[in-house]
Amino acid sequence: MIVMEYLSPHIIMRKGLIRGIEYPRFAADIAEFLAATLFNTSVLAGAAAEHKRRLELFACNIALCRITEDLVFTDPYREAPLNRWTSPQLDADKRAFETDAALKVAAQARKYQFLTAGQALIHGDLHTGSIMLTPDDTRVIDPEFAFVGPIGFDVGAVIGNLLLAFFAQEGHEAAPHARDPYRTWILDQVVAVWTGFHDRFLALWRQAREGEAFVAGLFASPQDEVALEAERRRFLRMLFEDSLAFGGLKMIRRILGLAHVEDLESIAEPARRAVCERKALRLARALVVEGAKFSDISDVIEAARAVARG
Amino acid sequence: MIVMEYLSPHIIMRKGLIRGIEYPRFAADIAEFLAATLFNTSVLAGAAAEHKRRLELFACNIALCRITEDLVFTDPYREAPLNRWTSPQLDADKRAFETDAALKVAAQARKYQFLTAGQALIHGDLHTGSIMLTPDDTRVIDPEFAFVGPIGFDVGAVIGNLLLAFFAQEGHEAAPHARDPYRTWILDQVVAVWTGFHDRFLALWRQAREGEAFVAGLFASPQDEVALEAERRRFLRMLFEDSLAFGGLKMIRRILGLAHVEDLESIAEPARRAVCERKALRLARALVVEGAKFSDISDVIEAARAVARG
Repeated sequence: MIVMEYLSPHIIMRKGLIRGIEYPRFAADIAEFLAATLFNTSVLAGAAAEHKRRLELFACNIALCRITEDLVFTDPYREAPLNRWTSPQLDADKRAFETDAALKVAAQARKYQFLTAGQALIHGDLHTGSIMLTPDDTRVIDPEFAFVGPIGFDVGAVIGNLLLAFFAQEGHEAAPHARDPYRTWILDQVVAVWTGFHDRFLALWRQAREGEAFVAGLFASPQDEVALEAERRRFLRMLFEDSLAFGGLKMIRRILGLAHVEDLESIAEPARRAVCERKALRLARALVVEGAKFSDISDVIEAARAVARG
Repeated sequence: MIVMEYLSPHIIMRKGLIRGIEYPRFAADIAEFLAATLFNTSVLAGAAAEHKRRLELFACNIALCRITEDLVFTDPYREAPLNRWTSPQLDADKRAFETDAALKVAAQARKYQFLTAGQALIHGDLHTGSIMLTPDDTRVIDPEFAFVGPIGFDVGAVIGNLLLAFFAQEGHEAAPHARDPYRTWILDQVVAVWTGFHDRFLALWRQAREGEAFVAGLFASPQDEVALEAERRRFLRMLFEDSLAFGGLKMIRRILGLAHVEDLESIAEPARRAVCERKALRLARALVVEGAKFSDISDVIEAARAVARG
């Protein structure tokens, strides 16, 4: 991870998103960061022995993983003393989520995945408050939640937090539609982050020669390459659904759980904030429960726009 | 694991299967062993912190896991100096597997799962040479391959090795059909092991109150229980396909790879052995590549009988 220097001109991305600032390098940089860190710390890129040592090294990160396990996957779906939400506006929404059997099962199935899928060394908390930017530079900070976990958790964190910023725009614009161009910019970043990650991850995999899963030497003929490429596509489709689900869960926990985000918290008027939050919850639930219905990232954008229109 | 005492009257199960001995307690005992060890060392049963400590403790088992990674998932599908097979009878079969793109991709996808799915503390080498029996008692030995891996690897090891014993009967019977009753007994054990494991694992999950995945307190209403039960069934269906695929891979490695099994090796006449082995390979390939087509364990039995008839 790239560590921030003191006195840098970078600002936390979340603050930039609230102000409506565009960052031309962000999507390409973060897509490269995601693909490079997540591919290169996996057994698609390297040795099994190295992976086991990574697992061993980070398995002691029990306390911080525990925070995620509770606050992301469990607490928003039950009465927990530290939960907060915009009340009374979202009281019924909170209660509906507590009794939403399909959503609770999906959230806990993702918790199981978080606890058992040792795919790569993940950042573990890659929201827009862990990214610092200038127009020319992108840096990732706060790696204290890192462990060997599911790849989609990092990708989903970025996408989910961009979508939170998208829904928050309604609470920040001076007049209706004033921020429409910025909304479009945010959604373009969602597309660019996913597409950039997807294409780069795929390219790294195609070039890999040292990975101990899908051993390169086994696949020599044109038919082998066709079958392997189909498997790569299947794998990336799985990462897509993982990313949407984890992203959706991270949106929900920021609205109904303990730790909220400034994008929404800085909307002073509760009724106005609740309108944004309810829309974000609606898309988030679809991402968690109905991931299979999104054929690609453009479907997510379309759904976000449809929900935003109300 | 239960450790063998010296001077015990138990014999290695594989030797019993060659002799044609029935063990009335075997299926129930091993199903209980599988369900209890695999459920109780998972986050379905216990704490995340405990699971991470288990992962950490066994992550150093690099060398023995490495043997499995190479010998089960990779070497049988390429030219490796230590591979052996009944030659020349199976030369064409070996070459066909080396160029079978779908099979190689499936084998490597299972290797990826073996390297990344930290579901439970598995035995890691639970073939019928790691089980010792009397008519009244069942013991599991040789836990040196143990690590936190995919549940289906242990279940599949038992099923795959029973199926090897089934196909080997043709090489051991005094006259055609002489061992038909014993064939039926073996296939009954396959059904009993899977069904017993399935039902017991499900029962343990339904009773669980301390698991940190699928937190019990979240699921209180009748609708919650319906949704959670559907998820349990989905999970067990996944374990079923995992078990078939791992079982099939373990059958293949015993016929085309380095380490063979006495069930087949003790058939002195190569032509006769090759007939048994070719049939075993045919079912094994289906288990690895077409697991989704088996609606339940009775389909596997039917397929085994169809392949055995030739």
